[in-house]
Amino acid sequence: MYISGVGRTKFGNLSDNLQELAYEAILNALDDSNLDINEIGAIFVSNFLSGPLNGQLHLNSMISSLIPGINIPIIRVETACASSSVAFNQAIYCLQNYSNILIVGVEKMTGVGLLPTTDAISMAGDRTYDFPNGLIFPAAYALIAQQYMLKNNINHDILELVSYINHQNSRLNPLAHFYYKEVSKEMIKNAPMIASPLNLFDCSPISDGAVAVILSKNKTSDRDVKVMSSKIATDTISLTERINLTSFIATKIASKQAYKEAQITPADLDIIEIHDCFTISELIALEDLGICGASEVSELIKNGDILRDGPFPVNTDGGLKANGHPIGATGLAQIFEIVAQLRQETEKRQVDNPEIGLAQNIGGIGGTCGITILGV
Amino acid sequence: MYISGVGRTKFGNLSDNLQELAYEAILNALDDSNLDINEIGAIFVSNFLSGPLNGQLHLNSMISSLIPGINIPIIRVETACASSSVAFNQAIYCLQNYSNILIVGVEKMTGVGLLPTTDAISMAGDRTYDFPNGLIFPAAYALIAQQYMLKNNINHDILELVSYINHQNSRLNPLAHFYYKEVSKEMIKNAPMIASPLNLFDCSPISDGAVAVILSKNKTSDRDVKVMSSKIATDTISLTERINLTSFIATKIASKQAYKEAQITPADLDIIEIHDCFTISELIALEDLGICGASEVSELIKNGDILRDGPFPVNTDGGLKANGHPIGATGLAQIFEIVAQLRQETEKRQVDNPEIGLAQNIGGIGGTCGITILGV
Repeated sequence: MYISGVGRTKFGNLSDNLQELAYEAILNALDDSNLDINEIGAIFVSNFLSGPLNGQLHLNSMISSLIPGINIPIIRVETACASSSVAFNQAIYCLQNYSNILIVGVEKMTGVGLLPTTDAISMAGDRTYDFPNGLIFPAAYALIAQQYMLKNNINHDILELVSYINHQNSRLNPLAHFYYKEVSKEMIKNAPMIASPLNLFDCSPISDGAVAVILSKNKTSDRDVKVMSSKIATDTISLTERINLTSFIATKIASKQAYKEAQITPADLDIIEIHDCFTISELIALEDLGICGASEVSELIKNGDILRDGPFPVNTDGGLKANGHPIGATGLAQIFEIVAQLRQETEKRQVDNPEIGLAQNIGGIGGTCGITILGV
Repeated sequence: MYISGVGRTKFGNLSDNLQELAYEAILNALDDSNLDINEIGAIFVSNFLSGPLNGQLHLNSMISSLIPGINIPIIRVETACASSSVAFNQAIYCLQNYSNILIVGVEKMTGVGLLPTTDAISMAGDRTYDFPNGLIFPAAYALIAQQYMLKNNINHDILELVSYINHQNSRLNPLAHFYYKEVSKEMIKNAPMIASPLNLFDCSPISDGAVAVILSKNKTSDRDVKVMSSKIATDTISLTERINLTSFIATKIASKQAYKEAQITPADLDIIEIHDCFTISELIALEDLGICGASEVSELIKNGDILRDGPFPVNTDGGLKANGHPIGATGLAQIFEIVAQLRQETEKRQVDNPEIGLAQNIGGIGGTCGITILGV
């Protein structure tokens, strides 16, 4: 099973609507592949907030409208911020019936707002207990960060460094939300507080964007990238139901299963995409993915091990923090970056000769995790 | 591939919340099967409006919370009113990896309303062109009904008869939304107009409810029902994009493919569940499913052919009109009824010795269609 085409839009505060974003990504992915739309057997569309923000659901039918004459199966998947890695996972099972399946993730978050954006995003968390008590996402991840910092005896400096590295990476990615923005360590340190200890630069932005990926049963060209594994796992939705706040069991379970299926260990990874919705989640993921132990995470980051020329390059596209976080497209954006890196087509941000990459995409506070391992 | 367990809640204006409805259906399906929750390899959750109405998305993680200790793959599917037949279809592909998969459809529509219900439901249609021009669902189906009545030279009497038959059927289904309600032909004829020519009794109600179905790779008991085919197709979302308003191409394509896979013809069907969101859609479906030609639909209904003791019993549970229409659960409710009928467990509404049943579940104005064929 191969990825035979990838396409995306720029991420950011864009003037395009939901349809235009999805259409652009689909056309780009088809252009990137050797395939014609008529060779696509089914489509998955991944999106989180089009109901509450755009007032539009039934996106599978909306996609049918974008491509006149298409009556093939189109399925919408929603699993919060993990929507697109889960859609990708489902497409793999569905591929038994078709030669090629297209997966498109799309989110239009700015300039809309049937409901306030923060209110809408909080629907990824528990609205029965957590939300009424103030646990919108920055607050929930702040609680987690407080506990993590206490437990592992670290201070905010390390989170600032994570943010800085992601912003530096985005300066080499012309499609990134913050490609244009020069960000200094001083700016990060002095940014306004959002929910202590998380300041503005610990939080990923509100972005518009879309990404499409084409999955093919058989190899279509030398640029195709192999799907070594895709696994998903779930966990409880409310923080009140968690015993351990500083580790996400869904990441642990899905990554363990994925390593097994791909027959690799974390040491074999040449490039990693981590779901850094907040800087703290990058630290948690490094441990949950088995890259290093909890006590070693700080050192790993300080040593420069997650830089482009280090042993574990992380978020070379800028991550959610600086590439952007158009929620229903984020998991596919990670896959886009790994494909581009494995093909050695990322120009200035290219990692030296990568052979295996992993993407970790989580929903809510780790209530869903999708792990994808790709290789050449 | 078999259905080894089915369970549902009562449909109607209920006091239960989203979690309670889903939980009750899941427990009932497990009770109905010989399986324990630990034998379920993955779960699909189908829902349409939990974001706009309940303010809760990420329902796959919510389901994980309902069953402590469960970290298995859980996937939410949304394709408007066809959400649950599409989730069922996807579960079939996923079953290659597991022995048993549970599919739960749930919708909580009353007593909630972060947004007005009619506004929320309109998200199944096109919000760019149709909605701003007043085409909420009753209006869109009224346009279709006007054209259908003109084209086929029928009057409202035949729609009233469809409504009456569905209400009569629901009087034999204790779990139906309108089980309690004696409905006369006079009441239907004189009901208040909603959108001409559709009056109140042409429109399905706003219902709460949940249904769960367990799909098993191997036969688990003599009560298991065989899945003969499941197919889905899509079409454009906006009425402005349709050439023909009086036929839904997605139903035609999906049913043709399903008949082929099941190796049957429409004449082989012993029981049919039709998506009568509005009475007019039942007439359209009878033609689109190939039960009879457009010019014969009226006669078929007047002859009593769709009654329980006729050659093509339709909506023995009361259909969407009288069993109810908890949107994300509706497709599974149809499957529930067919399973119950094929097992001959429906008591007073039992059809004589049925062997093959078909369910037609559409989303929006036929923008999605899921067809399921089951047999003993």
